[in-house]
Amino acid sequence: MLQPPLFSRVAVIGIGLIGSSLALAMRRAGLADTYSCGDASQKHVNMALELELVDKATTDNLAAIQDADLVILSTPVGAYPTIAQAIGPHLKPGCMVMDVGSVKQAAIAAIAPHIPAHAHYVPAHPIAGTEESGPEAGFAELFDNRWCLLTPMPETAPEACEKIAELWRRCGAKVETMGPEHHDLALAMISHFPHCVAFTAIGTANRLAQDLGKEVLCYAGSSFRDMVRVAASDPIMWRDIFLNNRQAVLEILSRFRKDLDALEQEIAESNGPALEERFAQNREIRRTMGEKRQIEPPPVTKKS
Amino acid sequence: MLQPPLFSRVAVIGIGLIGSSLALAMRRAGLADTYSCGDASQKHVNMALELELVDKATTDNLAAIQDADLVILSTPVGAYPTIAQAIGPHLKPGCMVMDVGSVKQAAIAAIAPHIPAHAHYVPAHPIAGTEESGPEAGFAELFDNRWCLLTPMPETAPEACEKIAELWRRCGAKVETMGPEHHDLALAMISHFPHCVAFTAIGTANRLAQDLGKEVLCYAGSSFRDMVRVAASDPIMWRDIFLNNRQAVLEILSRFRKDLDALEQEIAESNGPALEERFAQNREIRRTMGEKRQIEPPPVTKKS
Repeated sequence: MLQPPLFSRVAVIGIGLIGSSLALAMRRAGLADTYSCGDASQKHVNMALELELVDKATTDNLAAIQDADLVILSTPVGAYPTIAQAIGPHLKPGCMVMDVGSVKQAAIAAIAPHIPAHAHYVPAHPIAGTEESGPEAGFAELFDNRWCLLTPMPETAPEACEKIAELWRRCGAKVETMGPEHHDLALAMISHFPHCVAFTAIGTANRLAQDLGKEVLCYAGSSFRDMVRVAASDPIMWRDIFLNNRQAVLEILSRFRKDLDALEQEIAESNGPALEERFAQNREIRRTMGEKRQIEPPPVTKKS
Repeated sequence: MLQPPLFSRVAVIGIGLIGSSLALAMRRAGLADTYSCGDASQKHVNMALELELVDKATTDNLAAIQDADLVILSTPVGAYPTIAQAIGPHLKPGCMVMDVGSVKQAAIAAIAPHIPAHAHYVPAHPIAGTEESGPEAGFAELFDNRWCLLTPMPETAPEACEKIAELWRRCGAKVETMGPEHHDLALAMISHFPHCVAFTAIGTANRLAQDLGKEVLCYAGSSFRDMVRVAASDPIMWRDIFLNNRQAVLEILSRFRKDLDALEQEIAESNGPALEERFAQNREIRRTMGEKRQIEPPPVTKKS
């Protein structure tokens, strides 16, 4: 039983994995009457039309947002300042703007100054994704049972925030609100750091194999494969995340290094009791987390 | 169509995840006439009988190996010296001994000296496992399409090595032979190191949440969850692996730190082009690995 649409015309700027999944999830929920998208890549534009992700697609962002009452920014974070500056003056009264970037302080700094007083900006971040990218990677179930974190500013209208929360709930997500600083540090830990590890470890293993002149990676079991899975993620998106959440990522790396120092020292000293105690403690934390964790990633039911 | 059994009486010493899975996989393939197990834990012994993993189970290893023509050591590596010393004099002529430990130089050093000349020792390591432990965690499909690495010594009889290889092939595994040094360094990279990361990162995240007084772990998406999954692994098994592969693990940690230094510096310097190039390169390696990688872990079809 579909509820009435929340929006008349939705414009998605940046039709990659998240943008295309959001378009599909919104269509699944009947959240708007029409959908358009703007994307700098003609290839993405063609694919968005071919896959029928949207009703209209163009490389001209101003054409994409025409008459929109919701504009979604789902490009890499580094593109936000230019896009926000370009579209800001053309947003119609009452229009809502939402970004879905993985860092929120930088997103707010890039977008908020360009949003006119007659529009409403709500920063959002769905904690969902795969290592795939591009419009063909999207699927409507991506946000089912996943968290979407909203980081409103003090001046964000509560009604605007609630409407965006409702959008995400109807797209299957669980919604939580928090400050952008907490978001950025927490995400540096639970998302940006695992990518640091993946991007680094795959290189370390590759160089080891080269130095040995023997196979290493081909024998990798699930622990290594799971750890480096996200190393296949989009390089530009991740460049922008690290550039725009630099301080928080560096703090997490510093904390991790200290903890790794401690483990390394226990190994170097052959300190069996300390290692066993450490592993037993961490096993308990991991198990607690298991209970609290999100549902398993939804099955990927790609369009053919 | 079952082939004739390879063994008459198999004894499994240590009926944990690997020991129980191997018993089930061998039974599935009809590899022996009877199976017994020895385990220091009376609870494990009871469970092995209850789950019908073996025909006979006992806490007395000497009773377990009586008349065996294959003895499998599948305890934590730290228990090898004591067990090998105890059972060595009681192995019957022609008996084969195989360990399945995750480190091979230490396993050979612990076991080989205690094997009498009339028996044959073949060191093996199936690269398969889950974060679960204990006899109830075992399943017959664990080794299907996974690698099993054999690291024979110069004095290992080729026929003995081939018979063990055939055992693993009939248990569903792909078999490769390599030197124990290469094994230990490669495994430090692709298995022991991911466990270092998992055991450390879960503590780092937990302390961050404590310092902030706010939730962090509950929002973790798949990248973090995949990275720390193995932190739930058996603490004693992992204590023994780190104690027995200390040098190789420390070398890998040192290599990883250097590579992490480079990434950290690029982030600290906001060096966008270098980050993008690094991520693009590593994405390619990850994709190559994707093609070479093992099949997905088999579906866990636990006994009820």
